Amino acid sequence: MFFKVKTTEEVLRLLKGFSPVETETVPLEASFGRVLGEEIVSPQDLPGFHRSSMDGYAIRAKDSFGATESLPALLEIIGEVKMGRVPTVTVGEGQAVRISTGGMLPEGTDGVVMLEYCHLLDEDTLEIGRAISPQENVIRPDDDFKKGSLVLSGGSRLRPQDVGILAGLGITQVAVYKKPKVAIISTGDEVVSIDQATKPGQVRDINSYTLDAFCRMSGVEPFIMGLCKDHFDQLREMLEKGLAVADTVWISGGSSVGTRDLTLKVFESFEDMEVLVHGISISPGKPTVIARMGHRAIFGLPGHTASAMVVAEVFLGPFLARLSGVRDSAKKGLGEVQARLSRNIESAGGRDDFIRVRLTEEGEGWVAEPIFGKSGLISTLVEADGLVRVDRNTEGLYEGEMVKVLLFDARKGECS
Amino acid sequence: MFFKVKTTEEVLRLLKGFSPVETETVPLEASFGRVLGEEIVSPQDLPGFHRSSMDGYAIRAKDSFGATESLPALLEIIGEVKMGRVPTVTVGEGQAVRISTGGMLPEGTDGVVMLEYCHLLDEDTLEIGRAISPQENVIRPDDDFKKGSLVLSGGSRLRPQDVGILAGLGITQVAVYKKPKVAIISTGDEVVSIDQATKPGQVRDINSYTLDAFCRMSGVEPFIMGLCKDHFDQLREMLEKGLAVADTVWISGGSSVGTRDLTLKVFESFEDMEVLVHGISISPGKPTVIARMGHRAIFGLPGHTASAMVVAEVFLGPFLARLSGVRDSAKKGLGEVQARLSRNIESAGGRDDFIRVRLTEEGEGWVAEPIFGKSGLISTLVEADGLVRVDRNTEGLYEGEMVKVLLFDARKGECS
Repeated sequence: MFFKVKTTEEVLRLLKGFSPVETETVPLEASFGRVLGEEIVSPQDLPGFHRSSMDGYAIRAKDSFGATESLPALLEIIGEVKMGRVPTVTVGEGQAVRISTGGMLPEGTDGVVMLEYCHLLDEDTLEIGRAISPQENVIRPDDDFKKGSLVLSGGSRLRPQDVGILAGLGITQVAVYKKPKVAIISTGDEVVSIDQATKPGQVRDINSYTLDAFCRMSGVEPFIMGLCKDHFDQLREMLEKGLAVADTVWISGGSSVGTRDLTLKVFESFEDMEVLVHGISISPGKPTVIARMGHRAIFGLPGHTASAMVVAEVFLGPFLARLSGVRDSAKKGLGEVQARLSRNIESAGGRDDFIRVRLTEEGEGWVAEPIFGKSGLISTLVEADGLVRVDRNTEGLYEGEMVKVLLFDARKGECS
Repeated sequence: MFFKVKTTEEVLRLLKGFSPVETETVPLEASFGRVLGEEIVSPQDLPGFHRSSMDGYAIRAKDSFGATESLPALLEIIGEVKMGRVPTVTVGEGQAVRISTGGMLPEGTDGVVMLEYCHLLDEDTLEIGRAISPQENVIRPDDDFKKGSLVLSGGSRLRPQDVGILAGLGITQVAVYKKPKVAIISTGDEVVSIDQATKPGQVRDINSYTLDAFCRMSGVEPFIMGLCKDHFDQLREMLEKGLAVADTVWISGGSSVGTRDLTLKVFESFEDMEVLVHGISISPGKPTVIARMGHRAIFGLPGHTASAMVVAEVFLGPFLARLSGVRDSAKKGLGEVQARLSRNIESAGGRDDFIRVRLTEEGEGWVAEPIFGKSGLISTLVEADGLVRVDRNTEGLYEGEMVKVLLFDARKGECS
C-alpha cells in the first residue's frame, strides 16, 4: 500500500484540530507553570493607597519649591508614619512626616523627599536641599493595577511574577487547565525492560523513558504503560487501556514495515478510529502514524530514539501545548536561537530534514555544528543542543548561513 | 553607618564560594531535570551487536558490487531474522536474509540492501538493483557508545535524551544532587497574608509567592515560612527555624533603612554569622544584604517585588545552580536572546541598571522595548519578558543597539 505522506505544516494544522483539556481549580501555591484557564481582571486598585517608594519625609510638594542646597526649605516635623497603618496625622503647610519605603502617605501630603536630601536641624526641624514635584516618590492607588483592568490572559503559563500578582490581588484559588495525560507504549519483540541484561539482538526500552521525560518537561502527566510484543491482540489491549486513562496515546516502535502495518491494523480495528496521517515528509521521523478517536489523538512513533525525539520536538511539543490550553503566542520563537552554520548541509529535497546540531559560543553569537549519524543512535542526541530544519524546498544550507536552532531544553511546557 | 556596596561581579564571585549540596540516589524515572552527581561511563558497548538500520536484506556487500538497475545481482534467500533473536542462519556467498529495522545481522553478512532496491523473482530469489558498501545500513556494536567511554559528565542537568541513554545502558538508579532547600521569610508590619482583606496602608504578601515559584522554576525546594513583623525577636526566631530546615534562607522586605538595619542586627546576633555583602551597586536591588553562616547563605532581599525579582534573576538563579551542583556551562548564554533596543536608555552610572523589557518579533529578530516604572510595581514585571543590563561603565544604551536580554522564563533550573 502506498500513502501520500503529509508535510510538516499539514500535520501541525491537523493537530490544531484537537481541543484543550478541561480546567480545574488549584490553590495559588500550586499554580506555578500551569496554564491559566480564565482571564484575570483586577478586583481592586493596587496598591489601593498612596504609597511611598522611598525612605524620607512626606510633605506638600509645593513647600519644597525653590529649595536648593544653598537655600534649603525648613519644615516642621509633626510625626512618623507607622508601616501598615493609616497615618493619624494630617499635614499642613510647612509640615513634614517621617515615612519609610512602603508607608502610606498622610492626608495633606503629595510627595516624599528622599532621606539623602534631608537634614535635621533639631528633633522637630527639617531642612531639605532639593525641590520635589507633586507625586514624586509616590506610588498612586492604581499605579500597579486599576480595578477592572486586565491582569493576565487565559492560556498563558504562570511565571513567578504572574503568581505574585495573583497573590497581591488576594486571588488564592486559580482556574488552570488540567495536565493532559499521556499513555506511553513501547513495542517491539527486540525491546526488553531496562532492568534486564540484554542478549545479543535485544535492546533496552529507551523510548518509554525519553518520552516520559519529554512529557514532564512539557508539564503533562505521563503513564509508562510498559512493553508490548509485536502482537495484534496485546497491542490492541494496551491501546484500549491507554485510551481509558489518557488524553493521548503514544506507541513507539513502528520503524519497520512490519510493526507499522501491525500498528495500523490495530488502529483500523477500532470502529471509530480515523487514521489522519500516514507518514510525514520529514527525516528522521517519516514512518509516523497519527489517528483520531473522538477527542483523542493516537500517535504511532518511529522506534529509533532519534526519530521519535525529532517527532516529539516538532509535533508532540506543539500538540501538548495545544492540549494544555496554551494560546498561540507571538513569543514561541524564544525557544530558538540564531546560529551560524559551521558547514554545508546537503538535503535530499522533497522532505524537511531535521539536523541535530551542537552549539558553541563565538563572540556575541552561536555556531551550529551538525552532528551526523544514523537515526538509530541516541549518542547524537546526547551530544546535540537542538535541531536545524532544512526546508524541503531548499537544496540544503550553506556554511556561514544564519539558521534557526530549535533548542532541546527550551521551556516547552513547564514544571510540576 | 556607610558601607561600600559591592559590584555585580564581586557578588557573583562570592556566591561561587558556596558548595553544592550532597547527592542522593533516585530511580531513573525520577531523574529528569535533576543534576547528575556522578560521571557516567558506558558499562557496555551499545547496541552491542551489528544492527540493521533499515528494512531489507542482509547480504555480503561484495556480492552486490557492480549491481545496477539494468544489471542486477541475483541472490538466494535463505531465511529471515527474527527481532530480538540471534539469527540461526549463517550467510554464505550469494545468499541473503530478510531483515527488519533493528534486527541483528546474521553471521557472514556485512551490509543491508534497502527494500526499495530489492525485487523478488520468486520466493527464494532476490534481485538487487544497486551495490552497497560494507557496513551500509548497519549500526556497529559500539556505534552508539563504546564500553568505558564517557556518556555524561557530572553536574549536567538530565534532559529527556540523557535519561534515555541511561535507560539504554540499563542504569536504573542514578546519583543526583539533592534539591537544595530554601526557607522564605517575608517581613514588614504592612504585609498581610494573601487570604486577608487589606486595610489602607496594608499590602498582601507577594514576595513569598514569587520567590516560591522562582525556586520551583529553578528545581529547588522552597518552604514558605510565613510572615514576620519588623520585630527583632520574631525575626531571629524565624531565621533560626529557617536555618534548621533549609540550605539557604531568604528574608524579603528590607527596603527601608529601618528594616534593613533590623535584619542586619539579627544577622549580627548570631555569633558565627558573617555579613558578606551590604548593598550591591545595581538598580533596582541595591539594598540587598548577604551573610554566611557555615555553609549556608542568608539573603536579605529588598521588599519591592521588582527589586527582589531582579536580585533573584541576577544572583539567586546562579547561586541556586551552584548549590544544585550544576557545573559552569559554556551554554548558559542560551537563556538570553539578542534584541534591538527600541529606544535610548539613560544610565546614572556607577551602578548596573537592570531594565525590564518587552520583546516583540521583528523579521528574523527581536525588538526589546524598555518598560519603565517604579520598582514598587509588579505590573512592570508581568508585562516584561526579561532584563537588559546597562553596565555601570556605560552612560546608557542607544536606540537600535543590539542588546542581550536575560529571559525571565528561561530554563534556569528544572522541573520536578
